[in-house]
Amino acid sequence: MTTTIDLTRGMPPASTFPTEDLIHCCEKVLRRDGHTLMQYGRSPGYAPLKEWIAAYHQTTPARVFMGNSSLEIFAFITQTILPPGARVFVERPTYDRSILLLRRAGMHIVDIPIEQDGVSLEQFEEELKRGVPRLVYLITDFQNPMGTTTSLSKRQQLAKWAEEYDFLIVEDGPYRALRYKGEQPPTLYAIAPQRVLHLSSFSKLLAPGLRVGYMVGNEAAVSKLTEWATNTYIGPVTLTQGMVYEYCVSGLLEKNIEKLKRLYAPKLEAIQAALQKYLPDVSRTQPEGGYYVSLNLPESVRMDALLANAASVGLKLSDGRGFFVNPADGERFLRIPFCSVEPEDIEPAVVRLSQLIG
Amino acid sequence: MTTTIDLTRGMPPASTFPTEDLIHCCEKVLRRDGHTLMQYGRSPGYAPLKEWIAAYHQTTPARVFMGNSSLEIFAFITQTILPPGARVFVERPTYDRSILLLRRAGMHIVDIPIEQDGVSLEQFEEELKRGVPRLVYLITDFQNPMGTTTSLSKRQQLAKWAEEYDFLIVEDGPYRALRYKGEQPPTLYAIAPQRVLHLSSFSKLLAPGLRVGYMVGNEAAVSKLTEWATNTYIGPVTLTQGMVYEYCVSGLLEKNIEKLKRLYAPKLEAIQAALQKYLPDVSRTQPEGGYYVSLNLPESVRMDALLANAASVGLKLSDGRGFFVNPADGERFLRIPFCSVEPEDIEPAVVRLSQLIG
Repeated sequence: MTTTIDLTRGMPPASTFPTEDLIHCCEKVLRRDGHTLMQYGRSPGYAPLKEWIAAYHQTTPARVFMGNSSLEIFAFITQTILPPGARVFVERPTYDRSILLLRRAGMHIVDIPIEQDGVSLEQFEEELKRGVPRLVYLITDFQNPMGTTTSLSKRQQLAKWAEEYDFLIVEDGPYRALRYKGEQPPTLYAIAPQRVLHLSSFSKLLAPGLRVGYMVGNEAAVSKLTEWATNTYIGPVTLTQGMVYEYCVSGLLEKNIEKLKRLYAPKLEAIQAALQKYLPDVSRTQPEGGYYVSLNLPESVRMDALLANAASVGLKLSDGRGFFVNPADGERFLRIPFCSVEPEDIEPAVVRLSQLIG
Repeated sequence: MTTTIDLTRGMPPASTFPTEDLIHCCEKVLRRDGHTLMQYGRSPGYAPLKEWIAAYHQTTPARVFMGNSSLEIFAFITQTILPPGARVFVERPTYDRSILLLRRAGMHIVDIPIEQDGVSLEQFEEELKRGVPRLVYLITDFQNPMGTTTSLSKRQQLAKWAEEYDFLIVEDGPYRALRYKGEQPPTLYAIAPQRVLHLSSFSKLLAPGLRVGYMVGNEAAVSKLTEWATNTYIGPVTLTQGMVYEYCVSGLLEKNIEKLKRLYAPKLEAIQAALQKYLPDVSRTQPEGGYYVSLNLPESVRMDALLANAASVGLKLSDGRGFFVNPADGERFLRIPFCSVEPEDIEPAVVRLSQLIG
């Protein structure tokens, strides 16, 4: 057997980390602003980076909140903006860690099936009639785990409902800049800036270890989160924010995104071609960017058996059930994080998978 | 009027931050271990630093948990190890942010008066009879805000009670290494390692902006916190942990602590001499280290008036009521963070204070 191919986590290849540039950014920012960065900082984050992000999203720094990862900010949202037991809509399937955080905070989670162009509006409306949510959690671009993108018309309808029924939307967008083809719709935030809290981070565009995440949203939300974060840890880590700032203003981020796209786009082509060749009858999503493609495996598949047998063909697979509020719904669901796989491993990974479920 | 002297926050002077050494540590650790530090990390923290801390506290890495500040770790403790509404003992007065976190988590807080050698054992026993706490929060060395240190005999009795009545102690110890005179008693953790969760950080010994805090405690607690932290943000920021690791193994931390002691010890002498000279009748604590000396102001003082009038003599004072569970108890309490004051400002600060309350 050759080396095991790991299809579990959506981690960037370590070879993409611009370590030398980051060393240089650290030196530069500490020399210039060391007294601020080494002192107690304050939520909502390092001012120069907040300004850069505000400009990027065409808004003001007062609408930017920074934390030690966007996941942490979502945790803060569940602890401050949402009352316990609140009704929250999510996509089915969705990011497993977000389900965990909503559960931990005691939310009443309602999942709405996702289609190739985003959440089903019919089902959404049905659930809206049953009860207006306090918050809707969506991953609009290259959804995790599906890989699908919410269409412009669906974004517009969702924004309209948010206004009409007075609910908030968290738009989780860490993959948005990684589009390999097709046209970019505006963010939900751009459509409804008072209703949408847009989360993003530099984990997929630069390096996850920096743990620099941010939210762009209304000032009331920023202010609630700031108070909560200050009471939790005074301020987030600002050195890594300072490094990201130097990286961005030097024009390096743009170049890095282009580099990543040149690396990942062929991986997407390769995985789709291999799936078409070796698993033509298995239905799959058609991502235009991001990290994931997902499969709806044949009826005969049982997740426990699949996971147990994966090692025998040299694969490590993720349990699809983790992405569902009701785990049984993920019995035949498989997420493939194609960006994390080495180019030469993509076809062999699909061949092995076909042996497993063929 | 000359420049205002700020006696509010316990912040290290920015001039003490070893910025050049930290730049060098960042470069060194990113070159050596960049692939790990820039990838998704995992709670409970960067392995080499955990090992260094374990050796420092003569324990094993499995008993070390790392977070983005020790305050954050205390927040996690209130959210995981303590059930809501639990009975928690604290010192009176105590660190204002710890009171906030206990309140936020819905704890039933009982405060026990502190004496020159630590919490009053008579009062402690009284409260123990009224109801055993789940947790006792103590700052044993150079207490914030008092400046006092818990004596060895009190530590032994507290450890004995923790065993006998089955409660946990959080020992918050960020100032411990900053002893300017007198003898060092062992940590409570060293006396009762199964009962004590020892919190500390590099904020006062190196730089607060790094946000590197840690806990040393029993493995069950480490494991609960690890699960909570992983669900909150996957892993803490490890780059700053890596920098601290390089700083420590190079022997620089030890040298920095010696440098800080040479800087702070004369400040403690100066503030005590000035208080003796200009406010001889005001009772005060007699710290042997740390950041704070505290005053029990004359009966005539009212905090609101004191704070309002401070500006007129060129002072900025901290509201003593913040350090008390029952704010009224702090009506005449003043904390002075002498380490944060420039040497030449110490005598003028006390002169101005004497004008204010004389």
